[in-house]
Amino acid sequence: MEFYIKDASKFINKKVEIKGWMYNKRSSGKIIFLQLRDGSGFIQGVVEQKNVDEKVWEAAENLTIESSVIVNGTITKHPKKEEYEIQVMHIEIVNLSPEYPIGKKEHGPEFLFENRDLYLRSKTPWAVLRIRDMVFRSITNFFAEEGFVRTDTPILQPTSCEDTTQLFELDFYDEKMYLTQSGQLYSEAAIMSFGKVYDFGPVFRAEKSKTRNHLSEFWMMDAEMAYYDQNMNMDLQEKMIKRIIKDTLENCKLELEILQRDTKILENCVKTKFLRKSHFEVKQELEKDGLKVDYNDDLSTEEEIALGNKYQIPVFVTDYPFEIKSFYMKSFVDERGVKRAKCADLIAPEEAREIIGGSQREDDYEVLLNEIKKRNYPKKEYEWYLNIRKYGSVPHSGFGLGLERMVRWLSGVHHIRETIPFPRSTTLNRP
Amino acid sequence: MEFYIKDASKFINKKVEIKGWMYNKRSSGKIIFLQLRDGSGFIQGVVEQKNVDEKVWEAAENLTIESSVIVNGTITKHPKKEEYEIQVMHIEIVNLSPEYPIGKKEHGPEFLFENRDLYLRSKTPWAVLRIRDMVFRSITNFFAEEGFVRTDTPILQPTSCEDTTQLFELDFYDEKMYLTQSGQLYSEAAIMSFGKVYDFGPVFRAEKSKTRNHLSEFWMMDAEMAYYDQNMNMDLQEKMIKRIIKDTLENCKLELEILQRDTKILENCVKTKFLRKSHFEVKQELEKDGLKVDYNDDLSTEEEIALGNKYQIPVFVTDYPFEIKSFYMKSFVDERGVKRAKCADLIAPEEAREIIGGSQREDDYEVLLNEIKKRNYPKKEYEWYLNIRKYGSVPHSGFGLGLERMVRWLSGVHHIRETIPFPRSTTLNRP
Repeated sequence: MEFYIKDASKFINKKVEIKGWMYNKRSSGKIIFLQLRDGSGFIQGVVEQKNVDEKVWEAAENLTIESSVIVNGTITKHPKKEEYEIQVMHIEIVNLSPEYPIGKKEHGPEFLFENRDLYLRSKTPWAVLRIRDMVFRSITNFFAEEGFVRTDTPILQPTSCEDTTQLFELDFYDEKMYLTQSGQLYSEAAIMSFGKVYDFGPVFRAEKSKTRNHLSEFWMMDAEMAYYDQNMNMDLQEKMIKRIIKDTLENCKLELEILQRDTKILENCVKTKFLRKSHFEVKQELEKDGLKVDYNDDLSTEEEIALGNKYQIPVFVTDYPFEIKSFYMKSFVDERGVKRAKCADLIAPEEAREIIGGSQREDDYEVLLNEIKKRNYPKKEYEWYLNIRKYGSVPHSGFGLGLERMVRWLSGVHHIRETIPFPRSTTLNRP
Repeated sequence: MEFYIKDASKFINKKVEIKGWMYNKRSSGKIIFLQLRDGSGFIQGVVEQKNVDEKVWEAAENLTIESSVIVNGTITKHPKKEEYEIQVMHIEIVNLSPEYPIGKKEHGPEFLFENRDLYLRSKTPWAVLRIRDMVFRSITNFFAEEGFVRTDTPILQPTSCEDTTQLFELDFYDEKMYLTQSGQLYSEAAIMSFGKVYDFGPVFRAEKSKTRNHLSEFWMMDAEMAYYDQNMNMDLQEKMIKRIIKDTLENCKLELEILQRDTKILENCVKTKFLRKSHFEVKQELEKDGLKVDYNDDLSTEEEIALGNKYQIPVFVTDYPFEIKSFYMKSFVDERGVKRAKCADLIAPEEAREIIGGSQREDDYEVLLNEIKKRNYPKKEYEWYLNIRKYGSVPHSGFGLGLERMVRWLSGVHHIRETIPFPRSTTLNRP
């Protein structure tokens, strides 16, 4: 039977074979301790000179860091702790590695990401990217259970959705096309057939600022729901985020341990209702707390972090001034006469900042058409999008979750580049 | 409680509310039959003049095709068949649609795909794309159960994997980058950390030929496994394909019925072992069957179709001549002295053609380096890829499944463009 290290607890006193790599080693005279990994987990191999053939002992002595190796032996359990070892009986060196470029000494992030393919083998990327996999599966299962259909939207788009200054452009059989920034407009068309849809794929932003929050290529999940108003939209988002956190806490214990993640706040997020506060209210509160705020603008980085620290629970910041939001959002006029969008950004605590942006969409043909004209967007390009409001329009809402933002929060790493296998940004473009 | 049409069988004699669209209607004097859909399914609404208010009757009379509508009534079951209806008591017209451009008359594919956003509401796209969603979920679940980690590979790549003539190029902060044709090389690096990985995302090919088999943007699932030889690779592929077919047959009954799919061959594929035949053997057989074959070349379209028709079960065609295959494949010399690749293409029956390509990868540093030199690839660009063979190399294998090819086979539609929500090809680039 195939054996993987993650299943060690089910194989106590059984003979197994591990096919993997040796990532570290120490010896104390007549015992050599091999730190082994096979992709599924980590285990210590104990080689006792008195118990093995000379050739096996020699192999253990010769093994270098990051050599590939097949080890046979018996799984044993620590008498008091939930820890397992393999008492090694046989060693087959598959490939002896020369000195591994990423050793025990500290490397700067530049070196690590220039050698991302090698750095991937370290414990931090292993843990972070397995959490990413968990988030992906959690989202897939959640939407299947909620009756959503996954409808992949195109990467190559003839029109831009929002900000035209951050587009990557390419030649597509002698026509100009752009790399997608969002599949939302397409998802809105798809709900007219499927009711509730989501897409989940790469999006692109030519973002020249080098911050720990930005990548040029990242993964976005966009969900869109027919007959949903903005309150139903937020309810669904909260349910999804709680589900993702719960799945991660339950299934990624080893990963969170490796990352030394204090999970208190995350645990609380699963059982505590998220807050909902209007943009105006949030600005007012932050002003009282001593920040200099602009009531007509987005939340700044500083404000998002302050809000997260203040409540230690995700906060839906609702009702942004319409002028700073996208043309497709449904609007209303508040009691102070300010035109606002029926929208919410979800701000996560622990400096995770905005992880979701969502809104109810304008479902009135004339109102939407006027907004498109007002912003000087080319009407012709939006005709198909306007058709959603022409033929059987329905109230509808949707939201987008940034996968890397979510993974960064869960794993607690500082920089967004850690959360994607091969990051792309102004300074990261290989391997 | 929220009601969706797909759950009608659980709501017999219960009052429900349907929020959806009317896609067709017929009347017979004092009864109007509304064909309703809500994204989850289809149901007939029966409006009897004698049972409803005058206003409700008027609404039923006024309703136009593709209007959005909220209907209240009681679910009833056909006395003999597994069919359900809603006995309508109340109708709220949400949005009255003008004449829908896609009516009951036949339209050519050009018209349908120029108006893909509207055509999506028809039953064929509804059924095909829900099968696509099922395949996606089936693959996600399969790989999770098999202990794979999803590691997304980059869309923007500084080097090309194989064919350089079919690349889309773009400017990335003043450097040249290409849209991915495959994430395989990156997945090979990732197995050195995770053991077994897969990615599943869009890939691109500048393919000028207009056939029913080609798209410029399509979705590919690439899996890669450490310590797998080519036989284990094929075993895994067969298990996955059987699982996808089984999930689809079980969960997409309505979809297959709408598509009038005869599922006999698919059912047989779940329980019958796939064939494995060498490239040489296949060419020999097809030659005997009267085809003109080239022993040194790939299988032609005609040959793939003939092979599928002959066996009516997927066939792994193994051991292609190395010269026509990719540089990274592991090779061997056969008894006739021909250098062959340890590879297999999986050819599906029913004209579905090649759905998987896979191989064992060359794991010897020197052999791979020589092949790279021989093909005049820039060594510098492949240094990171060669590192996989330098530091703890392991025997490993992998394969790629074309999602659209698989969906086309399952759904039985003729043209590949039907299997993706918004297709992209030389002639399809909007909406």
